[in-house]
Amino acid sequence: MDIEIQLVPSPPNPNLVSDRVVVVIDVLRATSVMVHAMSQGALEIMPVATVEEAFQMVKTFPSGATLLGGERGSKKIPGFDLGNSPKEYVAERVSGRKLILTTTNGTKAFHLVSSGREILVGSFFNIGAIAQRCLGLDKDLFIIPSGDEGGFSLEDTICGGMLVDLITKKRQKPVSLTDASQCARILYKRFEANLLEAFHLSLHGKELINRGFGEDLIYCTQINITDIVPEFKNRVIKVK
Amino acid sequence: MDIEIQLVPSPPNPNLVSDRVVVVIDVLRATSVMVHAMSQGALEIMPVATVEEAFQMVKTFPSGATLLGGERGSKKIPGFDLGNSPKEYVAERVSGRKLILTTTNGTKAFHLVSSGREILVGSFFNIGAIAQRCLGLDKDLFIIPSGDEGGFSLEDTICGGMLVDLITKKRQKPVSLTDASQCARILYKRFEANLLEAFHLSLHGKELINRGFGEDLIYCTQINITDIVPEFKNRVIKVK
Repeated sequence: MDIEIQLVPSPPNPNLVSDRVVVVIDVLRATSVMVHAMSQGALEIMPVATVEEAFQMVKTFPSGATLLGGERGSKKIPGFDLGNSPKEYVAERVSGRKLILTTTNGTKAFHLVSSGREILVGSFFNIGAIAQRCLGLDKDLFIIPSGDEGGFSLEDTICGGMLVDLITKKRQKPVSLTDASQCARILYKRFEANLLEAFHLSLHGKELINRGFGEDLIYCTQINITDIVPEFKNRVIKVK
Repeated sequence: MDIEIQLVPSPPNPNLVSDRVVVVIDVLRATSVMVHAMSQGALEIMPVATVEEAFQMVKTFPSGATLLGGERGSKKIPGFDLGNSPKEYVAERVSGRKLILTTTNGTKAFHLVSSGREILVGSFFNIGAIAQRCLGLDKDLFIIPSGDEGGFSLEDTICGGMLVDLITKKRQKPVSLTDASQCARILYKRFEANLLEAFHLSLHGKELINRGFGEDLIYCTQINITDIVPEFKNRVIKVK
């Protein structure tokens, strides 16, 4: 099994994506929101790139059938039902509902890899389950951190590095790592005992603290609080 | 002082380059060759992108005034005087000579950043002198690892991380690091006590060993064997 991680967000080689299991990660906070919402009973999530698209899409559903969620500048979008804090996405709000979600980095990443066959939604919340699924599928793996405004994201790469570490340790046959996937694993090992320290060092983590979302950082460090593995297929995220 | 490092080679934002001190790094082996050659008395180095360009350029000088150096597939190019092992570039061969150099990754990186005002040539051989120069100039810094065939390079990023670490420790005022420059520093700290271990993990390091250049890896781990700071200006590398 080969594991590659794309350290800086950009459209990946389509051949690489179509041949591999793809894991999209945006720990702070889009994929944490997605995993949390699905674990609390949301039916499906439609990630869209723009706020306009979100408002257009909600009109195509019966009134009250969907909720609008997401952020711009980390804050809830005017007219939306929910922001981008995982804690908002609890059963009382989301169970049995469809969600339309738009965020600055995370929802766009899905469209970069939409040609992939199996596209999984990863975060610290479900990283153990993601590793198990990848081991079960036993195909080459392509991890795509959503990044921060087009740049490298420390926290997403660390989460990717935890996935590299889990798979490398658990797989019976050897795993082939690139320089990038080794880098991610080394970053994870550095912060293994204190993920919150990494969040506090990262530019996006600091921005979230400044904007009053410090509690989200603590919340998003929780590891393996669910076994759910959401998948992105035909523009929709669901649990099989 | 802001320090950014470009983890994956691509044309950088021209504004970023023109406003900053730029340090180009290709530890295995182009910038190690350059620093070594200049420390052994080479007059100047002209990095060119292609083998054809190198042969064209050598014709514009009097016979015997220049030496051709470089590699393709890590090996010396037919018709060239020197390959890409730093140890070849000793005073007996290069002192008082001009060099024309073409390598797979390193020489191309210079042309990506050619709009920069101050472009320094870094490697472990002269990393302390590079740090001193950067501290003296006291401008924002842009580090560009040459990468490996367009991808992330572990060894170049680690060398960049050592530069980040030296400057951060020695500067009296605080230094502002991005997620990427923090990543580089963390990678360096992981391998600080054993750079050769990192070279052995990296894809390009493994390739060099397979092609019989294992001794170059050991040679290129030497830290601060020279105080020379070569600069790239008007398509030529010189020492001021």
